[in-house]
This record gives sequence, C-alpha cells and structure tokens, in this order.
Amino acid sequence: MSDTRPIGVFDSGMGGLTVLRSLRAHLPHENLVYLGDTARLPYGTKSPETVTAYALQATQLLMAYDVKMVVIACNTASSVALVPLARDLAPLPVVGVVEPGARAGIAATTSGRIGVLATESTVAGGAYPRAIAALSPDTDVQQQACALFVALAEEGWGDSSIAEATAARYLAPLFDNEATAPDTLVLGCTHFPVLAPAITKVLDARGARATLVDSAETTAQAVVELLEMQKLKNTDDRTGTERFLATDAPERFARVGELFFGRSITADQVELVDLRPSI
Amino acid sequence: MSDTRPIGVFDSGMGGLTVLRSLRAHLPHENLVYLGDTARLPYGTKSPETVTAYALQATQLLMAYDVKMVVIACNTASSVALVPLARDLAPLPVVGVVEPGARAGIAATTSGRIGVLATESTVAGGAYPRAIAALSPDTDVQQQACALFVALAEEGWGDSSIAEATAARYLAPLFDNEATAPDTLVLGCTHFPVLAPAITKVLDARGARATLVDSAETTAQAVVELLEMQKLKNTDDRTGTERFLATDAPERFARVGELFFGRSITADQVELVDLRPSI
Repeated sequence: MSDTRPIGVFDSGMGGLTVLRSLRAHLPHENLVYLGDTARLPYGTKSPETVTAYALQATQLLMAYDVKMVVIACNTASSVALVPLARDLAPLPVVGVVEPGARAGIAATTSGRIGVLATESTVAGGAYPRAIAALSPDTDVQQQACALFVALAEEGWGDSSIAEATAARYLAPLFDNEATAPDTLVLGCTHFPVLAPAITKVLDARGARATLVDSAETTAQAVVELLEMQKLKNTDDRTGTERFLATDAPERFARVGELFFGRSITADQVELVDLRPSI
Repeated sequence: MSDTRPIGVFDSGMGGLTVLRSLRAHLPHENLVYLGDTARLPYGTKSPETVTAYALQATQLLMAYDVKMVVIACNTASSVALVPLARDLAPLPVVGVVEPGARAGIAATTSGRIGVLATESTVAGGAYPRAIAALSPDTDVQQQACALFVALAEEGWGDSSIAEATAARYLAPLFDNEATAPDTLVLGCTHFPVLAPAITKVLDARGARATLVDSAETTAQAVVELLEMQKLKNTDDRTGTERFLATDAPERFARVGELFFGRSITADQVELVDLRPSI
C-alpha cells in the first residue's frame, strides 16, 4: 500500500521552499519535486488572469513527474487560482496555503481578531478574509500589505534592524489602537517566516502580544492529514529525495533558496525547465 | 522637416518612467509611447537569454506604433540585450541607458574612481565596468548591488529613514576606506533616482562627497543629441502626447508609475497589451 510517487510543490519562486522545509520535517520519507517559476516571478504584482494562466502551465509540468498530489506553495496562486487548478488537475488532490492558514488563525485567536500580513495582490484579492469568514463569520480580520518583506527576505536581511524598522511601520496600523489590535498574525506569504524574529521584536517593543501563524507549517500539517486520509503515504523507510526545478536562473534559485529551505542547495541540483512556447 | 512620429520607450515595468520624465522635460513637443512589460517584471533577476527574448518581443510591439526611435529605459535590458535589439530594430536608432550613464560618470569624476549602484543582474552582467573601461581604461569602477532600493522606490518609501538605513548599509563597502572611495556614483537602475535624497543624506552623515549621476537624465540628453543629429525632431509647437502601454495590471502601473513619472497617471490612460502567444 506504499505510494512512492513524489509530492509536487509549486511556487512562483523560492519562497515556497519554506513549505518544502516543513513538509520535509513532517514527512522524512516522501519524495518531493519542487517547481519555482522563476522566469515569471513575482506573481504578487500580476493580475488574477495572468497568475491563473501561469499556474496552470506550471502545475501541468509537475504532472509529467507523476506526482500524487500538488501543493500550491504560493499565496497569490492559492488565492486566485486554487479552484481552476483543482479542476484542471482532478482527480489529483490539490492543497493551497490559504485555507490551512485561515484554519490555524481561527484556532489560535481568543479575542476573535486576526491580522493577515501578505503581499499587495493577496491583500487585494481578499482570499484570507473570505476563507476566515467561511469558517468563522464573527471573526474580525484586518489585512496589511507588506511588500518590502519579500525583498528583505530575499536579501537575507530578515533578522536585521532594517527589517525591524520595516515591520514596525507595517504593524503600526494594526496595533496603534489597543482595543482593536489582533491577538493572532497569519503570515500570508511564504517568504514571511524568515521575518518572524523581526516581527516578534517589534511586538515585544510595543508590549503587544500576538501568536504568529506560519502558513508553511500549517500547510504541511494539512498535507500529512490528506496523505493519511487518501492512503497516499510512502511507507518506505528510505530517506526521501528532493528534486528542484526552475524556469530560470538556477544559480540564483540555489543561493536565495537556501535562505528559505534552511539547507544547502547547489546550482547543479536545480534543473532548468521551460514552460513557455518557443519564441 | 518635422518628424511627428513618436519616440518609443521600453522598460520591464514603471522605473523607466524616470527616463520618460526626463525626456518630457527636455523635449516638450515630442510624442512619447511608453511600454512597461509589467506581466514579466522584474527583469533584474532573470537570465540574459530570457531578458533578451522578452525585450525583443516588447520592442517589436513598439514598432507597430510607428516609432522613430527606441529608448531602452531598463538597465538590465540595456546591459544584456542592446546589441541584439539594435540589430533586430535596424535601421531604427536604439538608445540604451548604460552608455550615457558611463559617459556621464567619466565626465563627473576627478579622482578616477566611480561607484555603480545597480540591481543584482546589472552588477553580475558587468555592463557598466565594460562601458566605462571602453571609454576610459584607467578609471576604477566599484559596483554595489542594491536589491532593496527597487522595493523601497515602488513602496513610495524612497525618502524614509528605512531608505537611509538601507543606503547606509549598501554604501558602507564603497566608502569605508577613504583612500579608495569613489567621488562619483552612477545610479545604474531607473528606480534609483527616487532614492537620491536618502543616498545624499548618508553621504553627508559620513562626511563623504560624491556626485550622483542619474542615468535617466543622461539618457534624455543622449536622445536629444541623436534627434538633432539624425534630423528626427518634431518641430511642431503643440504639446507632445504620452501614451502608456502595459502588459499587465494597468491600475498598479498608474499608481506606482506616478512615483517615477512625477505626474498623475490614471488607470484609464494605460492600455493593456498582450505580448504572449495565446495559451
């Protein structure tokens, strides 16, 4: 009953490697194939139509690797394209990052006030407020776009004084009024776990308290449950393999990717793949 | 002898609007068509092959607007694709931003030491050191990648304390050793003029002096000269028009573009164009 087929993980770039990292921690024996659409990143500033078209092309490519499940480790793609992706890939199970993050946020809050930190397009799309409202209509949701967090994470400055100053500026609108401040912050972008130390320092300095919900971690838990439920687990006791695919710049993928994966990646481990029709 | 055809200006996104702004200041009567390839920005993290393919598609589209000249208002595309673009568009004159910036840097330096601030890929491509060495082999060039400047400029935080702290960190390697510090800084990315106040404050705080060379301004001067030389000027005394084209997200183009253009742009002034083969 062992299913050795790999789990496919898709992101616009390297941020989704925080999800791969959590998957690896929970599932040491699963084989993992990660695809980063680095030629067309970031998705966070593109229109829903473009993001959907790109995500459909990318996940179709993962199918060629005989994956048993697809994880959309990209908040933007999860926000705008999960339904068309699930339809396109059916009967393959497809897991996004938004719903697990929303669920974990609801479980964590006691005050009923959740803050969501995300990219501009995830905020504009409103997927987190919708997902939270569907599960818990009385929960109050405040969103804050944190565009600079992506650049800070990719520069390796996630734990710097500049990251703290940036976090202080983004968090101020949420926490300036104590009566309406959230007690839970959902990190609604796969890059943001790298910023968690800076966010925590800002909260401490304000004397504020909030539980940070890392959607990478909660998504990995959702994958574990789904594997059990659908009897898709790999019960081999060999260590699982990782395979990295990128649509551009493997050297940069490896170098920046390490910041998110938390383990060494070398450029020759990254295969260049082409999603675009030839020009 | 008046040539009323528009000048085509191309960038991966909105940063090139600093070039459009300088062109407008110098050439009040010219008609201008600006194309931002917002569906595929940023180019600064992509491979030379991908950037060249994208830039060829984009500039071919400008040809449909009967342009009399093309300005590559993107440092990355100018760095890696100017030769294939000039070949592809011949006999149309093509102006990039790198050569004018290099020339202005050489004119400004008295110590013979120039610093170049640019994106990761422009630095890696080495186009500025090559252009400067070709004109002035004895000039010393130090480069510094300033990835966060792009995000700061797009967030509208170009003149913030966070921008200053970021500039201080990027400038330290260039200015820590007074004996080798440059006396001229070429802003090798069209986003960076927005950061000029922060850079100036950091230099003042260090007691350092350096002339800032804005490649938007120097490129506009190069265009003025070329129009004269090739007798392509529009001698009509009507005010020139601007036409904005974007491959994605016109609303964001208008909102962020204003930061660079320095004048109001409304979303309905921005035409959505498609460069991609249909999917």
